[in-house]
Amino acid sequence: MADLKFRVKAQSENPTKTVVKARGFEIIIDEPANLGGTNEGANPVEYMLAAFCGCINVMGHIIAKELDFELRSIDISMSGNLNPARLFGSSMEDRAGYKNIEVFIEPDCDASPEVLSKWLEAIENRCPVSDNLSNSTPISLKLKALQLA
Amino acid sequence: MADLKFRVKAQSENPTKTVVKARGFEIIIDEPANLGGTNEGANPVEYMLAAFCGCINVMGHIIAKELDFELRSIDISMSGNLNPARLFGSSMEDRAGYKNIEVFIEPDCDASPEVLSKWLEAIENRCPVSDNLSNSTPISLKLKALQLA
Repeated sequence: MADLKFRVKAQSENPTKTVVKARGFEIIIDEPANLGGTNEGANPVEYMLAAFCGCINVMGHIIAKELDFELRSIDISMSGNLNPARLFGSSMEDRAGYKNIEVFIEPDCDASPEVLSKWLEAIENRCPVSDNLSNSTPISLKLKALQLA
Repeated sequence: MADLKFRVKAQSENPTKTVVKARGFEIIIDEPANLGGTNEGANPVEYMLAAFCGCINVMGHIIAKELDFELRSIDISMSGNLNPARLFGSSMEDRAGYKNIEVFIEPDCDASPEVLSKWLEAIENRCPVSDNLSNSTPISLKLKALQLA
């Protein structure tokens, strides 16, 4: 299969609010008041968890089909801890992002625990968001202004 | 500083559409028709890029303040390539997620190229989403159903 390219474009509306366009969709990202924001949307690290939930749903259904059981629905709760000290520049001791991400998945189905255990393993192994969070990905961050200079 | 905990809850509405709650916010995730979805929202890997854009905006403003220049706004374009073969189960050769993420940032400001180069480096080093994408993060994926069994 050929690679797929996904892209987004974003504009800052204020120091914490970002309006992102992905195809025809508009995504509003902000920070809550206690993190200095205008609270008009979920924040970046919440969106990262949301993306992972969406991916688990898609993968869960693809793999249930492969394992030949009916998956009626999935409920997911997800959380992560991060220390904001590095972000705010007060200490560089901890990493910037989530130290860990904890996920509880509740599938509505009649599959056996053995089948569900295979199902879960395949989700973890084949989910794009899980891969990008649990493994390292090269990022190229460039300034457009400098390129034009 | 103490760790902050972020959490979301999600429900599948169909095999590709997921409704995520983050505090008071609802996030709709889906897949486009050509990936088997009902196209009611951006898809998980687009949300992952959106999260990164939102984080760059927040960090860009925090660090501009530290470096003492006025940042009027930021435009960001971001893209990533992934091969869907592993996701769909047709080949396990490639990784599941983005192989790389390319970001172009266009800050509207009067800072010198030297200051902007420091600015960019600090964003990359201190942005939580950048950290979670470019470095490895432990993920614990558990079944709620199995725990109750």
